[in-house]
Amino acid sequence: MTDRFDHHVLGIGNAIVDVLSLTEDDFLLQEGLAKGSMNLIDTARAEELYAAMGAATEASGGSAGNTIAGVGSLGGWGAFFGKVCDDTLGQFYRHDIRALGMTFDTEPLPNGGTPTARSMILITPDGERTMNTYLGACMELGPDDIDEEIVADSAIAYFEGYLWDPPMAKDAFRKAADIAHAHDRKVSITLSDSFCVDRWRDEFLGLINDGTVDILLANEAEIKALYQTSDLDTALQLVQKACPLTAVTLGEKGCHVINPDGITTVATKPVDRLIDTTGAGDMFAAGFLYGHSLGLANETSAAIGNLAAGEVLGHIGPRPQRNLFQLVQQAGLI
Amino acid sequence: MTDRFDHHVLGIGNAIVDVLSLTEDDFLLQEGLAKGSMNLIDTARAEELYAAMGAATEASGGSAGNTIAGVGSLGGWGAFFGKVCDDTLGQFYRHDIRALGMTFDTEPLPNGGTPTARSMILITPDGERTMNTYLGACMELGPDDIDEEIVADSAIAYFEGYLWDPPMAKDAFRKAADIAHAHDRKVSITLSDSFCVDRWRDEFLGLINDGTVDILLANEAEIKALYQTSDLDTALQLVQKACPLTAVTLGEKGCHVINPDGITTVATKPVDRLIDTTGAGDMFAAGFLYGHSLGLANETSAAIGNLAAGEVLGHIGPRPQRNLFQLVQQAGLI
Repeated sequence: MTDRFDHHVLGIGNAIVDVLSLTEDDFLLQEGLAKGSMNLIDTARAEELYAAMGAATEASGGSAGNTIAGVGSLGGWGAFFGKVCDDTLGQFYRHDIRALGMTFDTEPLPNGGTPTARSMILITPDGERTMNTYLGACMELGPDDIDEEIVADSAIAYFEGYLWDPPMAKDAFRKAADIAHAHDRKVSITLSDSFCVDRWRDEFLGLINDGTVDILLANEAEIKALYQTSDLDTALQLVQKACPLTAVTLGEKGCHVINPDGITTVATKPVDRLIDTTGAGDMFAAGFLYGHSLGLANETSAAIGNLAAGEVLGHIGPRPQRNLFQLVQQAGLI
Repeated sequence: MTDRFDHHVLGIGNAIVDVLSLTEDDFLLQEGLAKGSMNLIDTARAEELYAAMGAATEASGGSAGNTIAGVGSLGGWGAFFGKVCDDTLGQFYRHDIRALGMTFDTEPLPNGGTPTARSMILITPDGERTMNTYLGACMELGPDDIDEEIVADSAIAYFEGYLWDPPMAKDAFRKAADIAHAHDRKVSITLSDSFCVDRWRDEFLGLINDGTVDILLANEAEIKALYQTSDLDTALQLVQKACPLTAVTLGEKGCHVINPDGITTVATKPVDRLIDTTGAGDMFAAGFLYGHSLGLANETSAAIGNLAAGEVLGHIGPRPQRNLFQLVQQAGLI
């Protein structure tokens, strides 16, 4: 980055409150849910599923929102654009981002209108999460919610692939990406979910191939889905030709970092206990993008991402409970 | 228990959603909060404190509500009386009790009225919690909310001392206690908090001395506050003369069980990691009362209580994340 900036990372995504519940595999079968997936549901299905599921706890979530919370915990400066309603959950959501010192000024929908989004997240004993999302107020995010000044002053504008689901958010994305590039900033997206890739493959490939995406984040299933191959190496070689910088997360095996110079693997430490994978990919993004915005080597940024992801695996909920900056310092990465 | 019953334990208490946040000791000093206390606050103070505190997660709480959730996790049958509003938090609260198979039919206040209670719980690095409670809808719990049939069909009616704070709840308590005794059931209270004891000492002593209380639960600070002594042995000797059965929790040292036959100490195992003490006393109550309702020896009931308390110390939030019945089975206590 040559120019000074106000925010290391700007996140744009669906502002969702997570409703997290530990469950058994049988319950997923009974409800016809594919483990690890994100399912979009309507109000009626949300009520039905909530009535059937177990006791829960609530926490602010949303992929890009989690990432910005992670950037805050790492000691970075961040901003977030996302749509909530000014209801109780929307007030919680706003509080939780702002309490970390992050900027979040997107105008909420008035209380009484479409409610704040929520996702019922079912966590199986293997730590895997299956998400059932009612998008609510997120459906209203559009180009008018893009604050040009904040985009211009952010080193990286980061978008979740899930933004392609609500109708106007992709227009918001295009506007923000154009502003970012006009100010010599970088644009990053995550593919979010292999089912999301199935829904929006052509659009995602278009953005990568036309140079809109400077930094691509994905996990193994998502990058394979993008290139419709069961062979990871094939997918990595294809993305290497198409995108300047890609990180592909591999769960307990760490991640691959891919750029035109080559493909590097950055290992991660095994976690003490695996409770809940919710937010792990989002925390990797926080570490990787924050490191990149500081000008660190890609391998160092990836190691910070691995460490941040490890923190959230040990407890229920998607956002860090310990100070990530201290963890990164203790690991000698900064 | 001679008669059959539908519920092992009926809990009556303030129905409160916890808003839990990890913090530093300095923040308590800055906000003038005594560590470990429960402070009753109004709307204005709630807003002020929420704006100042860090990011949080939300979970159903309330002392007696937590205990009934614990009874459910132990495999027992339970019921709960408590007042919520039919708003988002009230719907969460109702769901979380009912999802455990517990009966909870107290009529909620209509949505738009006084909102569901919430408590901002600040957790310091030593695991201690400092609670700041806006009572909201709980202020409306009264004698009309006592379902006589459920009281008559519950082996133990259990009340939190915090019920003396809202204006009509003590009348609800008297009504329920009379029904319970008329049906040869037992009445139990917890002293809740040493500051709560300071507020209501004469009433609590009156209930113990007039034979209303069959089973008294307290921690060390509370039982000392009740008898206004700094010497635990003095307090134990006084309560031994006044109450048929008392359990006094001692943190990592386990608990004392006191009845006319003597005073026994039941040790507890050290926990792997202490994150958050919220709900530990409530889980002890769940184990102790459930064991008692099954006719187990007091020492066994106390050991179940110790084990249940240990489970919630290892994570943020007041209610069990693992199945307590399985833990009790593994420990060979049932």
